[in-house]
Amino acid sequence: MKKLYRKAIGLLLISPLLLTPANSQNLMGFGSEAAKKQLELEAAFDKQLQANNLRDWMKHMTAFPHQLGAAYGLDNALFIRNKLTSWGFEAHLDTVHVLFPTPKVRILELTAPTKFKALLTERAVKEDATSGQTKDVLPPYHAFSANGDVTAELVYVNYGIPEDYEELAKLGVDVKGKIVIAKYGNSWRGIKPKVAYENGAIGCIIYSDPKEDGYFQGDVYPKGPFKNEAGAQRGSVVDLPLAPGDPLTNGFVASAKNKRLTVEEAPSMMKIPVLPISYGDALPLLKALGGQIAPAAWRGALPITYHIGPGPAKVHLKLEFNFDIVPAYNVIATIKGSQFPDQWVVRGNHHDAWVFGASDPVSGAVAEMEEARAIGELLKTGWKPKRTIVYCWWDGEEPGLLGSTEWVEKYKNILSEKTVVYVNTDGNGRGYLGASGSHTLEKFINQVGRDVVDPEKGTSIIDRLRSRTIMNGTPVAKQEARTRTDLRIGALGSGSDYTPFIQHLGISSLNLGFGGEDSGGDYHSIYDSYDNYVRFKDGDFAYGVALAKTAGRSILRFADAEVLPFDFSNFSNTVQMYATEVKKELETVRTKAEDHNKLMAESRFEAVADPKDTFVKPVKMDVAPYMNFASLENALATLEKSASAYAKASANVARASGDKLAELNEILYKTERNLIHPDGLPRRPWYKHQIYAPGFYTGYGVKTLPMIREAIEQRNWVEAEQGILRVSENLKKYTAEIDKATELLK
Amino acid sequence: MKKLYRKAIGLLLISPLLLTPANSQNLMGFGSEAAKKQLELEAAFDKQLQANNLRDWMKHMTAFPHQLGAAYGLDNALFIRNKLTSWGFEAHLDTVHVLFPTPKVRILELTAPTKFKALLTERAVKEDATSGQTKDVLPPYHAFSANGDVTAELVYVNYGIPEDYEELAKLGVDVKGKIVIAKYGNSWRGIKPKVAYENGAIGCIIYSDPKEDGYFQGDVYPKGPFKNEAGAQRGSVVDLPLAPGDPLTNGFVASAKNKRLTVEEAPSMMKIPVLPISYGDALPLLKALGGQIAPAAWRGALPITYHIGPGPAKVHLKLEFNFDIVPAYNVIATIKGSQFPDQWVVRGNHHDAWVFGASDPVSGAVAEMEEARAIGELLKTGWKPKRTIVYCWWDGEEPGLLGSTEWVEKYKNILSEKTVVYVNTDGNGRGYLGASGSHTLEKFINQVGRDVVDPEKGTSIIDRLRSRTIMNGTPVAKQEARTRTDLRIGALGSGSDYTPFIQHLGISSLNLGFGGEDSGGDYHSIYDSYDNYVRFKDGDFAYGVALAKTAGRSILRFADAEVLPFDFSNFSNTVQMYATEVKKELETVRTKAEDHNKLMAESRFEAVADPKDTFVKPVKMDVAPYMNFASLENALATLEKSASAYAKASANVARASGDKLAELNEILYKTERNLIHPDGLPRRPWYKHQIYAPGFYTGYGVKTLPMIREAIEQRNWVEAEQGILRVSENLKKYTAEIDKATELLK
Repeated sequence: MKKLYRKAIGLLLISPLLLTPANSQNLMGFGSEAAKKQLELEAAFDKQLQANNLRDWMKHMTAFPHQLGAAYGLDNALFIRNKLTSWGFEAHLDTVHVLFPTPKVRILELTAPTKFKALLTERAVKEDATSGQTKDVLPPYHAFSANGDVTAELVYVNYGIPEDYEELAKLGVDVKGKIVIAKYGNSWRGIKPKVAYENGAIGCIIYSDPKEDGYFQGDVYPKGPFKNEAGAQRGSVVDLPLAPGDPLTNGFVASAKNKRLTVEEAPSMMKIPVLPISYGDALPLLKALGGQIAPAAWRGALPITYHIGPGPAKVHLKLEFNFDIVPAYNVIATIKGSQFPDQWVVRGNHHDAWVFGASDPVSGAVAEMEEARAIGELLKTGWKPKRTIVYCWWDGEEPGLLGSTEWVEKYKNILSEKTVVYVNTDGNGRGYLGASGSHTLEKFINQVGRDVVDPEKGTSIIDRLRSRTIMNGTPVAKQEARTRTDLRIGALGSGSDYTPFIQHLGISSLNLGFGGEDSGGDYHSIYDSYDNYVRFKDGDFAYGVALAKTAGRSILRFADAEVLPFDFSNFSNTVQMYATEVKKELETVRTKAEDHNKLMAESRFEAVADPKDTFVKPVKMDVAPYMNFASLENALATLEKSASAYAKASANVARASGDKLAELNEILYKTERNLIHPDGLPRRPWYKHQIYAPGFYTGYGVKTLPMIREAIEQRNWVEAEQGILRVSENLKKYTAEIDKATELLK
Repeated sequence: MKKLYRKAIGLLLISPLLLTPANSQNLMGFGSEAAKKQLELEAAFDKQLQANNLRDWMKHMTAFPHQLGAAYGLDNALFIRNKLTSWGFEAHLDTVHVLFPTPKVRILELTAPTKFKALLTERAVKEDATSGQTKDVLPPYHAFSANGDVTAELVYVNYGIPEDYEELAKLGVDVKGKIVIAKYGNSWRGIKPKVAYENGAIGCIIYSDPKEDGYFQGDVYPKGPFKNEAGAQRGSVVDLPLAPGDPLTNGFVASAKNKRLTVEEAPSMMKIPVLPISYGDALPLLKALGGQIAPAAWRGALPITYHIGPGPAKVHLKLEFNFDIVPAYNVIATIKGSQFPDQWVVRGNHHDAWVFGASDPVSGAVAEMEEARAIGELLKTGWKPKRTIVYCWWDGEEPGLLGSTEWVEKYKNILSEKTVVYVNTDGNGRGYLGASGSHTLEKFINQVGRDVVDPEKGTSIIDRLRSRTIMNGTPVAKQEARTRTDLRIGALGSGSDYTPFIQHLGISSLNLGFGGEDSGGDYHSIYDSYDNYVRFKDGDFAYGVALAKTAGRSILRFADAEVLPFDFSNFSNTVQMYATEVKKELETVRTKAEDHNKLMAESRFEAVADPKDTFVKPVKMDVAPYMNFASLENALATLEKSASAYAKASANVARASGDKLAELNEILYKTERNLIHPDGLPRRPWYKHQIYAPGFYTGYGVKTLPMIREAIEQRNWVEAEQGILRVSENLKKYTAEIDKATELLK
């Protein structure tokens, strides 16, 4: 669903001391005997992995469109299930029934000052074997758009995010009753129609500007990998930051028996019609706009002067959808744990695509399959995992994490009770490791990454990532990359199937993938094909194998660790950083309002206004109060001590054994459950994690300490202070569990 | 020649205390009696100024092309002289004979992989009455380009400045034997072919990218003021930072009698053929380029993927010029001083254009004429200036400051002896005051600016400028704008006729103009016309009148001041800032080399190289040594004390009178002579000022403390240390003169 690497760039940063691979003395969670065996197991695992399997499976699975509900989607699910069964897993399809809108009518036309009818189709290219298919191919559209038939003046709203509407207000432009055209980028797509609707627009068009996603970036398809004039980005516009999953059944599983809301009642349905278009279709619309010239930062790479409107461009947008309930086939495959069958190590990647989906998601799905096959080979040698391993391939991820969310909602209690960790992947490419997730896993994934060799460079994937941060990071990141033992990993917002695990249930999660040397414009288009993938992405599947090594090793270590390899010091350090950030944000917001009000009082806005331009009198801003952060600071100080005490105590895993060990491990994997709150976040109770959440106005993009940070951003001072207290309480409960774990190691 | 406002944006920053207009108690250089009279005089002056005169004269003077050597250029010179004579000035044409190349043959064609012949012409538009003229219209070309007939592969070099060639080296691209195509911007145009030649290129094309100068900025001509697809920027490519003026006679006056170099011998002639083209002509060339994709920062707004080449695009460039010696008619008009006839207050603006030149230079030239007319009216009332006033209109500025430089070289000794100050203007527009110059005049021009009312806002032009800095400046600039008494003015490099005065002779100079609300793409094109000016620039000539008030007031105060209004504290403060900057620059250069060498030693470049890209092994950098700045710091500490002592002493102008006053004033206006060094700057002896110079690799753009700063930038550590000593010596001599002045006031 999400291009992983785009967001994962923020992850990063290991000290020269620890740059050596894991050895029997330092393997997290293993005593030296066990560690020796584990490393041998991992070596045997690595030997099994074969790039050609990934290639063959990808070619097979991308031969036809396999979106949710498509015949070939079921074929792929069965293909995976049958493979898993043949590799020794207990495998089955777990089916849920979910709402999936598909387009019936799509019309977009310019009606004034000139006429133009948008093509709304991508074109076949001879270099791409599947691009000429039409059967079962969904044209460019936005799932969960409203039906609509609207005609109105057009307004260009840049990325269509809240700050763009602030700018429009300064320019005296109102979108009420208008149709807005926004470009992709700077937020998840669903934010754009949501904010347009909040501002009174009656329709929304989203286009791919060649600046971010076209010829400005590089040669276009098929000469190069970037978006050509006909390419368009499909995608979901369900209100994901409100809740993922079937919008008719938020919080419970969609099934034939459960009562569903109607489409009209569904809170996360988009309220206005919205359509994605190519830059070929956007050009005549944008060219026809008059009114003020767009601010410099708003201008893209089309050969026009970007105007804002409204009008004289007038457009007619008509959209009608089939709102069908379709089966979503999740493939679930398990190997029962020999020692702790009720501790589940869960791994997943979706299998549904928007069309052919070679990159998104098949590149990740086939790496996961090869992991499973290699584990099957290990089983043949007589090895059995201590803990239960659950391999999943999700359906219906693209329209809104439907398969995974409904599955998690369906098995909520048991999953919450038993799941040790969830490791997610999605589309995979060539280049650098992207790792995000729970910061209790930061040290762990750094150690895993030091044991995986980069296919291009021969050094570890962590080494290479460190080099990139040292070369291209901010001054602070560079400094840290040279001195901090572990590279920082990113926090998880949303955008793939880890969302219900971490955000709804508080299960520690990781999201892994490679990228950074595989950019292109195929995302959610018909050009995301096998031919495109092997020409422009991980053509020899070396990074597919590296991903299988990284994720597979993570699963094997979690499955067999004596003491589960959680670490709380990096978590503590990270949350301290977040706390510093929100305090700084409050200062920034306060200073900005003070400065603004001072400039108003001095009439500076009037002084610099060009009389030839529209002048809108500025409005006085309320100044943020000083807030009491003491509860959070105290909670963090205690956490830091407790985390440090646990790190010392857990250095000798031999201290825990028998029942004590079982108790210890249960405490460890359940620590993160203490970071969720039963009420969830304000106005979106489905999202329960108090440290990480997708931003209400960013979509995929994470907001850490979300209740506090978003309240400050939205100038809700009371809620920010409530957020400080709530996070402090969660952290205290969390810290108490760490102390219990430490106690057991004494 | 130069669009003043582009550079002058850096000027800026007055304390609320001094925001009141000058009064009889605080007028710099005047006792209270004299001040009262002076302010009455200025009020009478202001009353005379009439916008309609500017309009009528502009319409007349822009009716036909009036470049150097054109028949209408002489007509304009005679028109101005006759007016001046009628207004009571002694006015004459002072003629010099100078080299002025004009094009005979201009051919540019793409010969591979496809064929295209560049149009190389601008087109007539019906909204612009003069755009259809052809007689005497010089087509787009670069004066002082070499003749040439070359065919070679094309390479895109971004702006074509030294750092772009550093980037090309990293990418493994060599321009030896190639023709380069650079875009306008980020340096004076003459730098581009000079650096291309230094790197082995055999030809150079400069085009206007629509990003900086076309539809990206706004609607194109004639719908809006920005450059259309046919517009091209003429201009000089003489090696201005080496020396302005006739390249055959650097350092002495060009005349029928003096021996000239041949064109081939002339050091400041460009060594390769170079031609300006429109973006319409550039598009097929750039589109035909292959090779690597240009770095993101290099890409413009054409609807293509920007590639670097070399090739497969191959171009043929053929240029031939008439190298004629033509007469340049400077108009010189004087009013003899009643009390100090041998102290000259000089004022100038050029009258030659590239074609019709409504904005550049007629908008400034007609403001200067209206000043002169108003002074003529004052003369009729019986008033006479104490000092001699010299009003000048220069010819041949566009090809390389030919008229002014030759005049200054012709009268070098007398000018050096007698000139009190030089006040320059050039093209004028709508918006904010742009003021640059000697920082001994910073306090003075701030006081003048507080007495001129902004036509749009009714507050003083200084108030408005302060508001802009407070609204849009850097955090440091904002802070200063709220707290520092005087707004900072920019330093002078080159680009207009102040150059020979300040840079060659060390005469304190100011350059003034308005702009910032008048952007467009007419610069040096046929579209710089009366019709364009009245539609898109200072259409009611209100800022033309404001310029006449600002510059005229400056002339009147200098002409009649009892004690010349120089101030040394702001100068001292400014040079201290420059010294801090060069020290910081040395640190930056050192750290950069250390970081680079460390990254090399750690093989980080190899670690992040994409194996699909070209990899060029980095080269070790030499690390800058620590340098001894003590002599400069001591000189500055002494200067600060002396400046402060003078400021106290001069608060009471009554202290000086009679012979003492004459002596004092002569010391004051000659202080700046102590900032020049007879040897000039390294490798360019014509440039003698040790505080200000145009950058050797920026052209117009100033480099302050040039010998030190440029040596550091060019990694010449020995010369940088010599520069520190030389500047210190100049500052000591300068300070000694201030002390003498202070002594006379005791």
